[in-house]
Amino acid sequence: MAAVKISDRIDALRVQMRKRGIDMYIVPTSDFHNSEYVGEYFKARSYLTGFTGSAGTAVITQEEAGLWTDGRYFIQAQKELEGSPVTLFRMGEEGVPAIKDYVKEKLCEGGCLGFDGRTVSGAAGESYAQIAKEKQGRLAAEEDLVGVIWKERPPFPVNPVFILEEKYAGESVADKLHRLREKMEEKQATVHILTSLYDIAWLFNIRGGDIAHVPVVMSFAAVTMETCTWFVCPGALDDKLRSYCADNHISLGNYEGIYAYAEGILADRKVLLDKNTVNYRICSSLKAKIVQGANPTEWMKAVKNEAEITNIRNAHVKDGVAFTKFMYWLKTHIGKEEISEISAAEYLKARRQEQELFADLSFDTISAYEANAAMMHYAATPETDEMLQPRGFLLVDSGGHYLDGSTDITRTLALGALTQEQKLHFTAVCRSNLNLAAAKFLYGCRGTSLDILARGPLWDLGLDYKCGTGHGIGYFLNVHEGPNAFRWRQLPEPDRDCVLEEGMVTTDEPGVYLEGKYGIRTENELLCKKAEKNEYGQFMEFEIITYAPIDLDAILPEEMTAAERGRLNAYHAMVYEKISPFLDGQEREWLKKYTREI
Amino acid sequence: MAAVKISDRIDALRVQMRKRGIDMYIVPTSDFHNSEYVGEYFKARSYLTGFTGSAGTAVITQEEAGLWTDGRYFIQAQKELEGSPVTLFRMGEEGVPAIKDYVKEKLCEGGCLGFDGRTVSGAAGESYAQIAKEKQGRLAAEEDLVGVIWKERPPFPVNPVFILEEKYAGESVADKLHRLREKMEEKQATVHILTSLYDIAWLFNIRGGDIAHVPVVMSFAAVTMETCTWFVCPGALDDKLRSYCADNHISLGNYEGIYAYAEGILADRKVLLDKNTVNYRICSSLKAKIVQGANPTEWMKAVKNEAEITNIRNAHVKDGVAFTKFMYWLKTHIGKEEISEISAAEYLKARRQEQELFADLSFDTISAYEANAAMMHYAATPETDEMLQPRGFLLVDSGGHYLDGSTDITRTLALGALTQEQKLHFTAVCRSNLNLAAAKFLYGCRGTSLDILARGPLWDLGLDYKCGTGHGIGYFLNVHEGPNAFRWRQLPEPDRDCVLEEGMVTTDEPGVYLEGKYGIRTENELLCKKAEKNEYGQFMEFEIITYAPIDLDAILPEEMTAAERGRLNAYHAMVYEKISPFLDGQEREWLKKYTREI
Repeated sequence: MAAVKISDRIDALRVQMRKRGIDMYIVPTSDFHNSEYVGEYFKARSYLTGFTGSAGTAVITQEEAGLWTDGRYFIQAQKELEGSPVTLFRMGEEGVPAIKDYVKEKLCEGGCLGFDGRTVSGAAGESYAQIAKEKQGRLAAEEDLVGVIWKERPPFPVNPVFILEEKYAGESVADKLHRLREKMEEKQATVHILTSLYDIAWLFNIRGGDIAHVPVVMSFAAVTMETCTWFVCPGALDDKLRSYCADNHISLGNYEGIYAYAEGILADRKVLLDKNTVNYRICSSLKAKIVQGANPTEWMKAVKNEAEITNIRNAHVKDGVAFTKFMYWLKTHIGKEEISEISAAEYLKARRQEQELFADLSFDTISAYEANAAMMHYAATPETDEMLQPRGFLLVDSGGHYLDGSTDITRTLALGALTQEQKLHFTAVCRSNLNLAAAKFLYGCRGTSLDILARGPLWDLGLDYKCGTGHGIGYFLNVHEGPNAFRWRQLPEPDRDCVLEEGMVTTDEPGVYLEGKYGIRTENELLCKKAEKNEYGQFMEFEIITYAPIDLDAILPEEMTAAERGRLNAYHAMVYEKISPFLDGQEREWLKKYTREI
Repeated sequence: MAAVKISDRIDALRVQMRKRGIDMYIVPTSDFHNSEYVGEYFKARSYLTGFTGSAGTAVITQEEAGLWTDGRYFIQAQKELEGSPVTLFRMGEEGVPAIKDYVKEKLCEGGCLGFDGRTVSGAAGESYAQIAKEKQGRLAAEEDLVGVIWKERPPFPVNPVFILEEKYAGESVADKLHRLREKMEEKQATVHILTSLYDIAWLFNIRGGDIAHVPVVMSFAAVTMETCTWFVCPGALDDKLRSYCADNHISLGNYEGIYAYAEGILADRKVLLDKNTVNYRICSSLKAKIVQGANPTEWMKAVKNEAEITNIRNAHVKDGVAFTKFMYWLKTHIGKEEISEISAAEYLKARRQEQELFADLSFDTISAYEANAAMMHYAATPETDEMLQPRGFLLVDSGGHYLDGSTDITRTLALGALTQEQKLHFTAVCRSNLNLAAAKFLYGCRGTSLDILARGPLWDLGLDYKCGTGHGIGYFLNVHEGPNAFRWRQLPEPDRDCVLEEGMVTTDEPGVYLEGKYGIRTENELLCKKAEKNEYGQFMEFEIITYAPIDLDAILPEEMTAAERGRLNAYHAMVYEKISPFLDGQEREWLKKYTREI
C-alpha cells in the first residue's frame, strides 16, 4: 500500500514538472539551513520516496526516479523502497554514478533542471547551474514542487525561543559579536550572512525547539560592522525576547526577509559566507562579492570557554550518575525480569530526567542488542524491539541536553556470557579508546594525526570501523559539531581539518561491527587542554570528561599492556571518585567492584 | 678572519646592487633545478654569508644582511655567522618573520627586488613579483650578482654521463616515457617541462656526477606527445651516450637551450610543469598556458618496481655487512686505540668500498660524538674532529650508493658507560622506530597519519625532534626523495602528502637531540607492502630493509612492552640471518651477542 502511495506522489510531482517544463527535479534531504537533522516540515525527500533515513537525495525525471544514499542506509533503503518505483543508488559502490554524474548524463540538451533553491547549498547549486549551462539548458530553482503536491504537510516549525543565561553560555552576545566582527575585518568582509542554526543559537545565546533533540531556532542572521539582524518568525518571540534583542542591538526581520536583504546588499560590499552551508537562493541573489570561508562562529563555538567547561564537567557528572544507575540496574536485573531494547532505553531516560537542569535527550537513544548493534545507526521501533537475554552485548549510545551542557556517551554492556572473540574485540576497543585519550602531542596537531592511536589496535587485528573516530560536540546544541574531529582520511578541503585547540571537546568512539554478530563501541568525550610548554613547543593533552564504568566483565587484562591497564585503572578510579557520592549504598558497592583495579 | 672576508663580500654585493638600483637581493640555496644539494658552482649563499649548511636563504639590503635557516642548522649557523655582519633568522621560532614577510616589510615603496631568476622557483618568483608590484616597485631577476663578485668561482659542473642498465633500473626508457605521456594526457597537457635532475636521471635511465654524492646530470628535459628533448652540456656525452639517446628517440639540445625552447612554445599549448621546482626564468618566459602539477615522474620513481626492490634489498645486505663490520670494529677497539669521528667514518667508508657494485657514499657521513650529535647535520672537519672516548654515544648517519640501490642508515653506538638518561632516551628512540615500522594500516593513509607512532613515545616524555620522521629515498639517486614522507604537520599544499603506495621506500628516523649533551637517532628504511585485503579494504604494512644491530648496550628492556621487545628481537633475528653469512668467525660471534633476544 505504501508503494502505491509513493508512485502516486511521484506521478503527481511529474505532472507539476511537465506543467513547468522541468525535465529533472532534485529533492535533497535538507532544510533551508543545511542542518544535519531536519524538522518534519522538511522531510520532502522522505515524503516523496518513502525512504526515512537521515541522508539521501532523490532525482526524478519523467522516466526514472532514483534515490542516492550512503553505506549506513543501504539495508534500510532497500527495505523501504521495495515495491516502489524508486531505484536505489548505493553511493560509493563500484559502477554507481555519483548524483552529479547522473544528472550530467541524464539531463537532455536544452533541458530544465529543477530544485528548491533553499534546500541546496550555494556550492551544490552552482555546480548544478554549471551542468545546465553545459547542456544549453536552464535552472528552475524558485519553487518547492514537493510542497505543491504535499497535502498534509506538517506545519513549519515555530516554537518558543528562550535565552541561555550567561552563567551557562559563559560569554555575552556583545563579546561574541565583537569577536565575529574582528574575524570579518581580517577577511575584509563588510557583511556576514549566517544561516547555520547552531551558529546563530550560539551567537545570540538563545535556544529553541525547532528540530527534535536539537534546540535551535529556524532563523537567519546578517551581521555588518554596525548592525546585526535576526530573521526569525515573529511568533517564536515573546516580549522578553524582543527586549533581549533590543538590549543586544539585534534588529528583527521576518524569517523570509533574508532573501530581500541579501538581494539588497550593495554590489560594492564583500559578503563573508560559507557556500557549503548557505543556501543557493541566498547565494545566487547576491550582487555583492562573496568572500568564501567557513563561518568564524563554527570555530569560535567549538572552543569552549571557561564557564562552559566548568558546566560541561558538571553535566557529565550528572549524566554519569544517570548512566551508572542504569548500568547497575541492567547488570543486576537482566535475566530476572523482562527487559527489551526500548524498555532499557526508557529506564535510562528516566534516570537522566531526574538530573538537575535536564532539558532533553541529546539524540534518540541507540539501544541495540547483539547483531542489531552491528548496524551503526540502528534504532529500535516497537515492531523490531528485541528482548534482552542474559548473554552477549547491549550497545547503548545516548546522551542528554542539560542547560549546562550536552553529553554523548556509548557503553557496550555484557549481559552475561560472552565469546572469547567478543572479549578480545571489547578489550581492543577499550585499548583504542584509552590510547587516544592518553595522547600527548605538540600544539598544531589535527585529528588526522592522532586518529591512528585509536584505530591502530583494530587495524592490527585486520578490523576497522567505517566512520570517523570522533566528532566535536555542541554545548546544549547539536551533538555533532565541527570543525574538530578524529578521522584518518584527509578531507577534500584539508583546511577544514582544524588544529586541536585548548577548550575543544571531541568524542572518542572506536568500535567493532560484525554484521549479523555484534557491535561494540566505547565512547568518551575528550577535553583538549594544554600540557607543558618547553623548547619543543606547547604540548597538549586530553582530559576524559565522561564518567561511567567500561564493563570489566568484557575485559581481558592479559590482552593489555601494563600501561594500558594503568590507563583503565586510573580512569575507573576517577569514575568512582566523581560518581559514587551520588549513589545509594548498593549502587556504590557495585560501582566499587566495577571500577576495581585490574 | 673569515668574518672580515664575509663583510667584504657583502659590501661588494652592495656595490653591485647600488650600481643597478637594486634595493634588496635574495640569494637562496639552489642551483637552476631546485636541487636539494648543489654543486660547488652554485654555493653562492654559502660564499656570501659563510654559512655552509645545506638549507638557507640570504637577503641583503644596504642596511641589513639576514640569513634564514631551519631548526636543523640553528647551532651551526650561529657558530658560522659569529662575528660576521649577517643576522641569523631562526625559521619557525616565535617572533621570527618568514622571509616573505620580511621582504614585504623591508622593501621600500617603489623599490627594486633582485635575485637570479634561475635560482628561484616559479612559485617563489611569482610571489616576489607580487610583493614588488604591491610596493609599486620592480623585479630584477635577470642577473646573477653573486657571480659578478665571485672571483674564484668553481667551474660549472660537466661530468661524464653513464647509462644505468635496465637490470638495475627495472624499466625501459620507452616504457617510462609512455607512462609519462599517459599522465600528460590525463592532465590535457601537450608539453611537459622537467627540470628536476633526479626525475631526468630516472626517466632516461642515466646517471652522472654533477653534484657530490648525487649522481645526476645538469640538464633539462621537454617532452611532447611525439618528441623528447634533453638539454645537456655537449661535453657530458660520449658517442655511446649519443647513440643511446638516438635509440631512445631523445633529441639533444644545449643546456642553456631550454630558455629559448620554453619561450618558443606556442601560446595555444598547455605546458605541464611544477612551479615549485621549475625555475622562475623558465616559468616567466612561457607564453603557453601552464598546467600546474607535481612532475608525474616524482610519484612514478617513488614507487619502486620489482627489479628495483630486489636490488635494493640486496644493496642493503651489503651495506648492512659493511656497517656491522664497522660496528664490531668500533665496539671492540674503542679505548684500545685512537679513533676519531673522522677516522671512524673512514673505516666505515672502507668497508662500504669493499662491497660489490659500490659507487659512492650516498652523502657525507655524519660521525658525531656526544654533544656534536645534538647538531642534527653536524659534519666533522679536520679542525673539529673529536677523539672518541670509551663512554657515551657516537651517532653515525651514513649510506652508500650501489648500482643496485642507495642506502641511508643511522645507528647510535654506545662506546662505553652511559647515563641512565641516555639509556632511557635510546630505548625510547628504539621503541619509536620499531613502533612505526610495525604499523598496519588501511590503504589511503599518508605519512601524516602514521607519524605519531614514531613521535608518540618521545612526545610522552616531553621531547621532540625538529624534523620529519622520514623521507623517501632514491634508487642510486638523491637519498632524499619525495613525495612519500613521515611528518606530523600538514603541508601548506596537503596534496603533496601522498598516499603510501606499495613499493615506496621511506626512512624511519626518530631521534633525541639535547643541546650540549648528546644526540640519538636510529634510522631504518621501510618498504611499503600490501597486507591482507578484506571487507574493510586493503591493509598495508612495512618491511624493514635495513640490517644492522640496534645497540643492545644502550637498551633498557624494562622500559619496553612485551610487544616492543618482541619487535626488537624479531628485527635482530632477521639482521643475524641476513648479515652473519658474510662475516668472519669473530664478527659472527659478536653479532650473535648483539642480536640476542632480550
